[in-house]
Amino acid sequence: MFHHSSKLQYEVRVDKPNPVFAKMLQQAIGGVEGEIRVAMQYFFQAMGARGDDKYRDLLIATATEELSHIEFLGHAVALNLEGAPLSMQEEAAKDPVVNAILGGMNPRHILSSGLSAMPVNSNGVPFDMSHIYATGNIGADMLANATAEAGGRVLASRLYNMTDDGGMKDMLSFLIARDTMHQQQWLAVIEELGGLEKSLPIPNSTPEDHEATEHSYYFLNTLLDKEAPKGRWTEGPSLDGKAEFSVREKPEPQGQEPSLGKARKGSGAQKEQM
Amino acid sequence: MFHHSSKLQYEVRVDKPNPVFAKMLQQAIGGVEGEIRVAMQYFFQAMGARGDDKYRDLLIATATEELSHIEFLGHAVALNLEGAPLSMQEEAAKDPVVNAILGGMNPRHILSSGLSAMPVNSNGVPFDMSHIYATGNIGADMLANATAEAGGRVLASRLYNMTDDGGMKDMLSFLIARDTMHQQQWLAVIEELGGLEKSLPIPNSTPEDHEATEHSYYFLNTLLDKEAPKGRWTEGPSLDGKAEFSVREKPEPQGQEPSLGKARKGSGAQKEQM
Amino acid sequence: MFHHSSKLQYEVRVDKPNPVFAKMLQQAIGGVEGEIRVAMQYFFQAMGARGDDKYRDLLIATATEELSHIEFLGHAVALNLEGAPLSMQEEAAKDPVVNAILGGMNPRHILSSGLSAMPVNSNGVPFDMSHIYATGNIGADMLANATAEAGGRVLASRLYNMTDDGGMKDMLSFLIARDTMHQQQWLAVIEELGGLEKSLPIPNSTPEDHEATEHSYYFLNTLLDKEAPKGRWTEGPSLDGKAEFSVREKPEPQGQEPSLGKARKGSGAQKEQM
Amino acid sequence: MFHHSSKLQYEVRVDKPNPVFAKMLQQAIGGVEGEIRVAMQYFFQAMGARGDDKYRDLLIATATEELSHIEFLGHAVALNLEGAPLSMQEEAAKDPVVNAILGGMNPRHILSSGLSAMPVNSNGVPFDMSHIYATGNIGADMLANATAEAGGRVLASRLYNMTDDGGMKDMLSFLIARDTMHQQQWLAVIEELGGLEKSLPIPNSTPEDHEATEHSYYFLNTLLDKEAPKGRWTEGPSLDGKAEFSVREKPEPQGQEPSLGKARKGSGAQKEQM
Amino acid sequence: MFHHSSKLQYEVRVDKPNPVFAKMLQQAIGGVEGEIRVAMQYFFQAMGARGDDKYRDLLIATATEELSHIEFLGHAVALNLEGAPLSMQEEAAKDPVVNAILGGMNPRHILSSGLSAMPVNSNGVPFDMSHIYATGNIGADMLANATAEAGGRVLASRLYNMTDDGGMKDMLSFLIARDTMHQQQWLAVIEELGGLEKSLPIPNSTPEDHEATEHSYYFLNTLLDKEAPKGRWTEGPSLDGKAEFSVREKPEPQGQEPSLGKARKGSGAQKEQM
Amino acid sequence: MFHHSSKLQYEVRVDKPNPVFAKMLQQAIGGVEGEIRVAMQYFFQAMGARGDDKYRDLLIATATEELSHIEFLGHAVALNLEGAPLSMQEEAAKDPVVNAILGGMNPRHILSSGLSAMPVNSNGVPFDMSHIYATGNIGADMLANATAEAGGRVLASRLYNMTDDGGMKDMLSFLIARDTMHQQQWLAVIEELGGLEKSLPIPNSTPEDHEATEHSYYFLNTLLDKEAPKGRWTEGPSLDGKAEFSVREKPEPQGQEPSLGKARKGSGAQKEQM
Repeated sequence: MFHHSSKLQYEVRVDKPNPVFAKMLQQAIGGVEGEIRVAMQYFFQAMGARGDDKYRDLLIATATEELSHIEFLGHAVALNLEGAPLSMQEEAAKDPVVNAILGGMNPRHILSSGLSAMPVNSNGVPFDMSHIYATGNIGADMLANATAEAGGRVLASRLYNMTDDGGMKDMLSFLIARDTMHQQQWLAVIEELGGLEKSLPIPNSTPEDHEATEHSYYFLNTLLDKEAPKGRWTEGPSLDGKAEFSVREKPEPQGQEPSLGKARKGSGAQKEQM
Repeated sequence: MFHHSSKLQYEVRVDKPNPVFAKMLQQAIGGVEGEIRVAMQYFFQAMGARGDDKYRDLLIATATEELSHIEFLGHAVALNLEGAPLSMQEEAAKDPVVNAILGGMNPRHILSSGLSAMPVNSNGVPFDMSHIYATGNIGADMLANATAEAGGRVLASRLYNMTDDGGMKDMLSFLIARDTMHQQQWLAVIEELGGLEKSLPIPNSTPEDHEATEHSYYFLNTLLDKEAPKGRWTEGPSLDGKAEFSVREKPEPQGQEPSLGKARKGSGAQKEQM
Repeated sequence: MFHHSSKLQYEVRVDKPNPVFAKMLQQAIGGVEGEIRVAMQYFFQAMGARGDDKYRDLLIATATEELSHIEFLGHAVALNLEGAPLSMQEEAAKDPVVNAILGGMNPRHILSSGLSAMPVNSNGVPFDMSHIYATGNIGADMLANATAEAGGRVLASRLYNMTDDGGMKDMLSFLIARDTMHQQQWLAVIEELGGLEKSLPIPNSTPEDHEATEHSYYFLNTLLDKEAPKGRWTEGPSLDGKAEFSVREKPEPQGQEPSLGKARKGSGAQKEQM
Repeated sequence: MFHHSSKLQYEVRVDKPNPVFAKMLQQAIGGVEGEIRVAMQYFFQAMGARGDDKYRDLLIATATEELSHIEFLGHAVALNLEGAPLSMQEEAAKDPVVNAILGGMNPRHILSSGLSAMPVNSNGVPFDMSHIYATGNIGADMLANATAEAGGRVLASRLYNMTDDGGMKDMLSFLIARDTMHQQQWLAVIEELGGLEKSLPIPNSTPEDHEATEHSYYFLNTLLDKEAPKGRWTEGPSLDGKAEFSVREKPEPQGQEPSLGKARKGSGAQKEQM
Repeated sequence: MFHHSSKLQYEVRVDKPNPVFAKMLQQAIGGVEGEIRVAMQYFFQAMGARGDDKYRDLLIATATEELSHIEFLGHAVALNLEGAPLSMQEEAAKDPVVNAILGGMNPRHILSSGLSAMPVNSNGVPFDMSHIYATGNIGADMLANATAEAGGRVLASRLYNMTDDGGMKDMLSFLIARDTMHQQQWLAVIEELGGLEKSLPIPNSTPEDHEATEHSYYFLNTLLDKEAPKGRWTEGPSLDGKAEFSVREKPEPQGQEPSLGKARKGSGAQKEQM
Repeated sequence: MFHHSSKLQYEVRVDKPNPVFAKMLQQAIGGVEGEIRVAMQYFFQAMGARGDDKYRDLLIATATEELSHIEFLGHAVALNLEGAPLSMQEEAAKDPVVNAILGGMNPRHILSSGLSAMPVNSNGVPFDMSHIYATGNIGADMLANATAEAGGRVLASRLYNMTDDGGMKDMLSFLIARDTMHQQQWLAVIEELGGLEKSLPIPNSTPEDHEATEHSYYFLNTLLDKEAPKGRWTEGPSLDGKAEFSVREKPEPQGQEPSLGKARKGSGAQKEQM
């Protein structure tokens, strides 16, 4: 069960409101790299967690923190929208700065939300929940979470570079820090479960006779005019410790030419296909 | 530039067509765990690859392989739809098996595609390209790719368990094998670039003074009635080797109570808010 | 800031797991009538609340409760998926009940989530955040909230009728009860702010000279072959107390015939349009 | 059956075309507050109307009017796009006003529609029909309709404030007026059906023994550090006249700790979860 | 301006209600081949029509007819849902036919719409307006319309084959007929404007020096192991009468190897990319 | 099976990078008129092709070419983003040109992709695969393909007009040329199969007794105040050679007034509807 206390997790200060930066901040709320995504992803993973219950606790605790991130970011968006222009009066239209703000901000911050945050990204596209990755496999889920936090920290760093507002930089430096921790905590679960060697291939419970293992450890070079790019993936032991990596150059098709024959009567095709 | 040869990468055989399994196979084509996603994800990452060009080659080569996976899966869907019922004639309606097939298959396999594959998942929801993760950061992208392949192998294993068709099991065992390789090749890039210690936190180029590092290494326990779940993430050196993990129990808010004051005149609020 | 305690807001018991009912329950999580929607809607309204802060408190408190509803519904879905069939073995395929379950359940409950809840509706369509209505106008928002709770209680009542599982009926009777309260609490805000007479038309802050009031109080009967349906909306004082309702039968167009003339050179039209 | 006459319902005049305002006007066509939504919502409610047929007539008549609103708004968008820049010639690029227009307008008004209206909102996001709320319950539907019209009038008022074009202000004052009527006509249906007291809780046909009525009339205060916000919803008779409102402070969970146990064999989880 | 008369354009009769067929019929309402699509596509094309006004009249007249098709199809869906099961009572659960209906119908027809039509396709996916093709180019638009009607008639024919209900077959035979007319009327516009020879390439207003015409008339054979498929497109005069078709076998890339070099400082990449 | 060679199909040169043009170019990658759409549409049509195999070869060969178009367009976007502003430093904010760029470019080109292409359109809306039209009917599919290429050439022509960059004009003139060929090659298939007379109505395999042919050849004039627009579609032989076109003026409804009666008990309606 959830509870709420009335103050924000972190102080939000906007020294100089900027409606165009408000639009950009939306990416951190409603973008695929944003906080709604991680809050909901960890929440749904927690609800489907099987095995040791401590991982469910880890997930729900962090989901709860991410909800608090949405909350302070939402406040930051609203503060950046203070004083945004509500009209295109002729005087304003002659001022190129006002013009650029009106053109560059999200018009729905005026028209739809009344100068506050929305669950959309920086293009105004609403977040959709197909991005909640929760497979029921803890290995796949921990990688998905580390990915989400990596994307999140990349975004927060770019937003930090974008603004020169002291308050916003301070808030973003906190987000950058928490994303540092979260990246590592999910990868730490994999380490605790035996590291990559024991975890891979995910799922590690797939019986070996379900896998055509002769195809499991070569890099397939589909490039017609270049040798395979060489690296850790082309030689040496595989990361799961079960085989050696190799390369298959200029692969030939192993299958048949696909042909479906005539269309069936009554299937809605043209006569000429039948 | 792309080229095509006329045979499939892998042989597709369906011993006993099953329209309900055709619906399930769609998840491997148009699901978030599916082949359109990885083909397009690696393709867009390749187009945005900066730094050593060999990683671009690695990405585009694998994107090309994934296109071939779409192709043989598409053929498998069509073969599973051979003989699917095209009508609800009264005789059929009394046969519970025919009824169950008609109810359980994707009706659009009859109505929209004429008994062939579609770029949708097993619920009939079309794939959308918001799932193409390509950040321009090679660390974030490699994690995203390993995630996609982990999800893909989880899915292929579940499909393998679902069917008892020998041909389908054979094809899926090939997919399971290639997903094994792909999971590892992306993680091998991270290993080649110095492993987690050098790569984390992603992006590793964020200047340290952009980060409130006092918040970077503690687990925040937002659970009111439980201690923090203990594990690799609560003590010991951080995965990036820069600090020690710790725990912050029962955290208090550090910010203000958010209050936006009165609504502005002309902003479309109710009078009582002004 | 949010916090969490480890038990569910309400006891969840499933006497006889039913994967088809699990699919239906998803509507209460990820449907437009569901709990993600109300949790997020009240949360975003709270973040944009202007005027008396007590309404923000009301909103955030109820958002927090709705998060707890997601949580116990998610558990109910997982419990209904206990024992769901993981394969289409031939023996099973001959059993029409197993067949009907396999056809009637959401295949992604097996393939994608590993037998747990997802943020999707009963068709498997992911929830998308365009449904979070938060206008910054407290009147519009309270109506939106009452609407959401009305839809929610309609849904919960239909789910109650659908199941004959005692545990599920008990849980749904709790949801029905909370939706009763929530419907009324949002309408109570309107009553507290002076009721419909003072609140309408929303926004009540629009200056009267922005409105062509001669068009504000008649019902327009666009039906060619019927008189206007008579009722409270065709005569008597308007709900805002400012005028009398009337009817305009067989309305004639008041505008011009729209004509855009020739296409511009360089605009990509056909020559014949220029 | 529908019919059409060649003139617009209301005169459209644009004194000074403005492509950025054209983008904003799109919200009134393809936004969730827009005319496609209400036209289609009333249309689908009419098609599902059960009970007294006069409500079906009311719905279809107003759906028909809203189609005419789409039509004149579409014309207004096209007129605002007259003269929009079709190129980024170097001369133009130096003019900050042209630049701001090019950056601030919807590029698809040039690239995709050839200077005319599209069924998208002011962010260019296409309208999607998941927003058509039609539950088959007249109470829920009337609230949904009043909500839609409240949102519509908020939007029209904001657009009115945004423009200083006399023609556009005139057209918007008509829209504001019709939204005034439509808000009231839907709420008038509820009044005619006995008002809130008889209509609530929606659905009013849910048998009382389907509801855990001991949970139906208290406000749940999930705030840890504040008392419940006091108001019409915390004391006095409930709006349905059946009980007294009360408050439950600092609620404790009533349910169990959710735990799903081990993952099943063959379910695609990691070995460590089994 | 639109008007409505109270009867349906065509008689709807359902001899034997079938909730699974109701689900399938939804494709004709809310599918990409359905009536909402054509109604709205012709409507938006009409609003953007430039050149001879008679084409605008043609478009709006047919848009109006399509609205009437939505209306009678919506009624057909509701009639097919008469008597649909509202519960999973244990007796019912043992009856495989009831089970198959419950599994095979759209659960939202019960849960969300109360046994009436919805603006969704046969998978329950809502129609989205990105499918409204209206380019402002009459040639492109007429092809798009003929495409939509071809898809529509394919769908109607498949639905006709699917059902054995006399009333439904009668209604669908009317739809098939109207789609016959509509396919031809749009292609007739192209014929009237001079046929393919004058209309192609679309847009026919693109100045010839904007086109690298040496690349305009050869078929590019990207197949590595097969000659180009021969046909009308590989030899003989081009359809626009301007050149001869030819074939380019085994094409070589004409461009450079793409390389983006190092990532910029401050762009959020990994250090190793800089 | 697919293969790749390392150079681009066509040379890409950007003389003067322009981030706003990068945004516009996205329409040609991820728009409904763009290259992902045609690549995937031809690919899925190929996978479902029934009848003469040469059409499958034609489709897959062209799908492969379109993949190469995505590739060079993606490179063009990245090159246009070279030097895009990564911050809103105060100096910059005063420069209206920088301001206009920041407001007019897609912010996700900085925040999400790190200055490279994305699978989105010029509004930043991700491409979704519902736009892949592949019906299994070769007539419908060829029209859909010609439509897609017509839209594509309209778009490419508009982009050509928009830019004054010599490199971009050169690349677009190649795209314009290839779209010329592709429009014609799909229509040439229809010609080869007997032209419109033999192909129409699509599907030409629908038995005549499935069609109410008395409704197949008249134009329905739903306009109340105007005669039917006269043209090729109102008189003369129909395009399929089977009948004469005619007009039906002022059509009367042929169906009943739709009425659904009372709502069922237990269906979630209001009492007043029962």
